[in-house]
Amino acid sequence: MISVLLIGNGNVATHLKNAFLNADATTVTQISSRELKNIPKTDVTVIAVSDDAIAEVSSKINNSLVVHTSGNVAMNSLINSDRKGVFYPLQTFSKNKKVNFNNIPFCLEAENETDLKLLEQLAKSIGKKVYQISSKQRKSLHLAAVFVNNFTNHLYKIGNDICKLNNVPFEVLQPLIQETANKVSELSPEKAQTGPAVRNDRETIENHLEMLNKNQQEIYKILTKSIQNGEKL
Amino acid sequence: MISVLLIGNGNVATHLKNAFLNADATTVTQISSRELKNIPKTDVTVIAVSDDAIAEVSSKINNSLVVHTSGNVAMNSLINSDRKGVFYPLQTFSKNKKVNFNNIPFCLEAENETDLKLLEQLAKSIGKKVYQISSKQRKSLHLAAVFVNNFTNHLYKIGNDICKLNNVPFEVLQPLIQETANKVSELSPEKAQTGPAVRNDRETIENHLEMLNKNQQEIYKILTKSIQNGEKL
Repeated sequence: MISVLLIGNGNVATHLKNAFLNADATTVTQISSRELKNIPKTDVTVIAVSDDAIAEVSSKINNSLVVHTSGNVAMNSLINSDRKGVFYPLQTFSKNKKVNFNNIPFCLEAENETDLKLLEQLAKSIGKKVYQISSKQRKSLHLAAVFVNNFTNHLYKIGNDICKLNNVPFEVLQPLIQETANKVSELSPEKAQTGPAVRNDRETIENHLEMLNKNQQEIYKILTKSIQNGEKL
Repeated sequence: MISVLLIGNGNVATHLKNAFLNADATTVTQISSRELKNIPKTDVTVIAVSDDAIAEVSSKINNSLVVHTSGNVAMNSLINSDRKGVFYPLQTFSKNKKVNFNNIPFCLEAENETDLKLLEQLAKSIGKKVYQISSKQRKSLHLAAVFVNNFTNHLYKIGNDICKLNNVPFEVLQPLIQETANKVSELSPEKAQTGPAVRNDRETIENHLEMLNKNQQEIYKILTKSIQNGEKL
């Protein structure tokens, strides 16, 4: 049995608490980051608070193994006195949407093998996919996530704006959005690329630009150029 | 029973042929656009060829109702002598991937109600989702599709490039890609927006820009600006 202390009240903390509660191999206590006194001793202390509060919260914890759940904060930003680690579930969490941790990759980091094994055991008590990811790798994953999640969602928003302007229901695009996401689980994004940019279909590109506002034109041009250059990092 | 003549050998033609073959309510004949002689008389003739060949192929067909399957070509670009229409399945088709037409929206257009009803019946013989979409609306849908499919796929490619450079398997991002796509079937993209841009988290944005090459920086900046402006069409 792994005992877990969970600090925080946000989406990640709440979803993790529910998962740990339902797991046979764990016991869990949840406290707010504003009530850091009489802290119970547990095997793992999971700090699930906003990035800029992690260091301060960790400074008040004397428990043995303290981990945070952030994609964007280095393990060594924890300033607890004992061992440190990271327990980062890579997903976008919504308040009212149920989470299936079986589909969520846990990116783990620890200072030694024993702690890493413990975090692995903890992740596998509620999920399936476990990766050992260094702080540097995690930072790059977080950056990549901005492209495939935040920026992609903004492209959906532009698609929605274009639909609205033309009285077309956005739901017509939904199956295409799904299939585009599905495709890259079987095909590399490079191989999956289609459309006027990669075909260099200038007539269609010109027609499209005429239908867009200035802001959208800028985005269209820069992404078309980037697709055509096939530039790599 | 609706008799269908299918002209073309590409992905769309092949997937449609297989679907019509399996449907109880249709019979189908397929011919190549290079063999346009002794053309059989059918209820509907479906021209599924590349955009720039549609007009020429249509000029050689004397059948009563002739439709094309393109998102980007106006109905009136058909120059057959009799009635015209559009039968546009909005999806990205891959050669070797099975297609479930039940999930694919059929965007239909015709010159009169009777033909529209016939196209509806034809679409429903192999699928479920049917929309009446004018040539102007279809053009805007095709443009929106470039954003949510082609450009989104390019953002996946950048995510993949960042992963490769840091020796992180791209599959770690797959569940996030899926969830991002799922989310906008329940929430508008505007409400689903998260990340450093919408939070105006300048420190993270600066950190991210330092990790990117010039081309990626350009894309990062322009999309961040667009998210922050919340500009509408």
